[in-house]
Amino acid sequence: MDPIPLYEQFADELEAQILAGTFPEGSRLPSLREAATSRGVSMSTAIQAFRLLEDRGLAEARPQSGYYVKRRHKAPKIVVEADIGPVDPMTVSIDELSMSLFRDKLDPGFAPFGAASPDPALLPIEKLDRIVASIAREGGFAQDSSLWPEGLEELRRSIAQRAFASGFPITPDEIVITAGCTEAMSLCLLATCRAGDLVAIESPGYFGLLLILEALGLHALEIPALPGTGLSLDALEFALDNHPVKALVAMTNFSNPLGALMPEESKDRLASILGSRGIPLIENDIYGELYFGEKRPSVAKSRDDENIMLCSSFSKDISPGYRIGWVAAGSRTKEIVKRKMALTSGASVLPQLAIARYLESGGYDAHLRAIRRAYARRVQGMVEAIEASFPEGTSIAEPEGGYLIWVRLPRGVDSMELYAEAARARIAIAPGTLFSPSRKHKDYIRLNASVWSQKTEKDLVRLGTMVERLAGKARR
Amino acid sequence: MDPIPLYEQFADELEAQILAGTFPEGSRLPSLREAATSRGVSMSTAIQAFRLLEDRGLAEARPQSGYYVKRRHKAPKIVVEADIGPVDPMTVSIDELSMSLFRDKLDPGFAPFGAASPDPALLPIEKLDRIVASIAREGGFAQDSSLWPEGLEELRRSIAQRAFASGFPITPDEIVITAGCTEAMSLCLLATCRAGDLVAIESPGYFGLLLILEALGLHALEIPALPGTGLSLDALEFALDNHPVKALVAMTNFSNPLGALMPEESKDRLASILGSRGIPLIENDIYGELYFGEKRPSVAKSRDDENIMLCSSFSKDISPGYRIGWVAAGSRTKEIVKRKMALTSGASVLPQLAIARYLESGGYDAHLRAIRRAYARRVQGMVEAIEASFPEGTSIAEPEGGYLIWVRLPRGVDSMELYAEAARARIAIAPGTLFSPSRKHKDYIRLNASVWSQKTEKDLVRLGTMVERLAGKARR
Repeated sequence: MDPIPLYEQFADELEAQILAGTFPEGSRLPSLREAATSRGVSMSTAIQAFRLLEDRGLAEARPQSGYYVKRRHKAPKIVVEADIGPVDPMTVSIDELSMSLFRDKLDPGFAPFGAASPDPALLPIEKLDRIVASIAREGGFAQDSSLWPEGLEELRRSIAQRAFASGFPITPDEIVITAGCTEAMSLCLLATCRAGDLVAIESPGYFGLLLILEALGLHALEIPALPGTGLSLDALEFALDNHPVKALVAMTNFSNPLGALMPEESKDRLASILGSRGIPLIENDIYGELYFGEKRPSVAKSRDDENIMLCSSFSKDISPGYRIGWVAAGSRTKEIVKRKMALTSGASVLPQLAIARYLESGGYDAHLRAIRRAYARRVQGMVEAIEASFPEGTSIAEPEGGYLIWVRLPRGVDSMELYAEAARARIAIAPGTLFSPSRKHKDYIRLNASVWSQKTEKDLVRLGTMVERLAGKARR
Repeated sequence: MDPIPLYEQFADELEAQILAGTFPEGSRLPSLREAATSRGVSMSTAIQAFRLLEDRGLAEARPQSGYYVKRRHKAPKIVVEADIGPVDPMTVSIDELSMSLFRDKLDPGFAPFGAASPDPALLPIEKLDRIVASIAREGGFAQDSSLWPEGLEELRRSIAQRAFASGFPITPDEIVITAGCTEAMSLCLLATCRAGDLVAIESPGYFGLLLILEALGLHALEIPALPGTGLSLDALEFALDNHPVKALVAMTNFSNPLGALMPEESKDRLASILGSRGIPLIENDIYGELYFGEKRPSVAKSRDDENIMLCSSFSKDISPGYRIGWVAAGSRTKEIVKRKMALTSGASVLPQLAIARYLESGGYDAHLRAIRRAYARRVQGMVEAIEASFPEGTSIAEPEGGYLIWVRLPRGVDSMELYAEAARARIAIAPGTLFSPSRKHKDYIRLNASVWSQKTEKDLVRLGTMVERLAGKARR
């Protein structure tokens, strides 16, 4: 057999790049000279290769302008509905499921009850845009002169000032700026545990944490958490007496998915249980500012500054896309900074600067008051709609903050079956099994109430009808 | 003993916050009402607490305006020079040393031969500023609608197009956007190794990698690397035959600190040594674009797309502070995306968008040509200055790209001693011991030639004098 001629090899390579999307339909291909140089072939070989691409219907020459990727005629796209939801729940791993939640969120056609995203309309986007434009006009922020692994000093100071105003003193020196609350928790776990260690977590609890544990090779010990009051401290004590737990990760205020608020005296007891055993608490307070009551709830951190690492972010109230979070790490700050420096060097300077200016500009408090009221109303609206449209046997954990609602389905309704059916109808929900590494809570779902409109209300009624049908099937 | 009265406790807390810098000198303290509410005390207790702060000389009342942190009179600051460099090299851990390099870089008083930072004057800052301002005018980028864990599609496509033009085809689908090359390498290691595993590295090699290995609990196997050609492949083969190595991390083009360029045929052999054993290569190509010759050197990745993960970033040529890097991970892309999602969710959207627009805007190639010429001249200038001002017995690894120069000191000169002495004279250098976990290479230093001016030339002459003195001492 003859070897494949060089121009044909080159055409094959170009074809692969076109089909992979490197050069999208309609875009200009590299010039013949560029292509020849990059591939190290002669101009005549490049010309032959491009002509072959023309013959294959992939490229077209335009006079005076070079070669372009030809638009291909396709059959009209058919939406393969069965493709959206997994068919067999047992074959879906936590991370595939959570990945699909992540993607459904990006599809504007889906009813947004799945991922725990804030309503984009309730973010201070215009003000951030103005701040960024003014930073750009001042110029020069592309320089790394302010790239410290712990983050911008002005941002850390603003965070400490706000925390003080909220009644929990933390200092700028113990704050490390992170890529969202996600990286804050990752770094705390890296600083307190080694692969193979046991970490106590809430069950049900935030599924993103399960992804972190998996990525770091850590094992999870599930501690029951209850709607209303959150983590069961009796269960925690029992577990700590019987297992070599290296850290606890918990959400004390408006937990995900329960929306539970740990009572003040339970926070006292939590701090003392852990402090007396020297087991660190990684406290995730991402929803703490979104309270519906009179007063911001406290954090456990204020009971034991040394042993508790407080994690939060601006992803729920200012901007998820900026990826700016923080941890106040007490005596473990140096260990956290070291790992931050090792793994990502530091957070991008521009978004840090924009958030720092936003916090300093005033208006954040008024913004928070407005979104607290909005989310309280939306949660109330969704709770009433569930009560009206879901069948008997449904029960609801009504939260006092945040925008997540934990719903128990009628007996016999499997949340994974509902998830798949809802996905086919383009309604995103989070099935309960996501919130436990051992796939407990299969008769629960979590609903995001952050967006609430006539459209979403209608979608919720449709969801209620599905639950009713599945409940009827279960009774037969 | 009487208990401490509540107002005094509150004053103590405020004092601690003032001294910690939460409220800097001259700044406004919270109003009495805010303070009383946040601490849950009465107005009269708050008034007593603030008066006590006044008595302590920490706060002052300003009429109609509230309390301010008083400026404290201090003795003039004395520069404690001996404080800057470590006294006993043996007590300095790699990460403390590298942290101090990181900080020296931020001190404009230091001669910048230490950290491997590009010259800020050679970054396209004005153009980036204009791009960011125009993105801000368009509005709306604070939304997370484009927060995919793998990064913005337009950026991934631009990277693939540029790689194709450079002669190594990678596809947008295998690219994951990261927080610099640092996170790219971290994710590759997390995707291929577990804690306790053995990773082969170059010696001398990039010290940031040592920090990553430490943070992830991985062990390092040092493979000798040589000025000129880089990693010794004979040593690598021997090591792989005798140790359970799980991955190799290497810089094939203009390595740090050697500035070595692996010959094309060695890249072939490297790909085949690893491919036949199924050991993945994490290829760090961060200096690949900064070649001084006619043609961009190739990457090993183009020899074995599946087994080689190619890491790079825009930190050396566009902006270090943006923290935008990438990895093209072939068959391991899904594993990398999963870990990216778990540990940081995704890269900040705004810097990604700015870099994508910059790449699309044209002008990047002209910028690269300009900085290649500039760095080639600076490296040449520094090499000549070393030859002129360092004593006999010094030798230099002259690089063909990048801006790092590896210098062998005359016999008996300890680079840690030189490091400490130079730091006292406000000259930053990177001692050779930084580049090996077993602290080899103590008679070498790495010099950053990215900034080259009359001032830095003078500093280099001063450094040469120090080397001469230490060499004289060693001979006695």
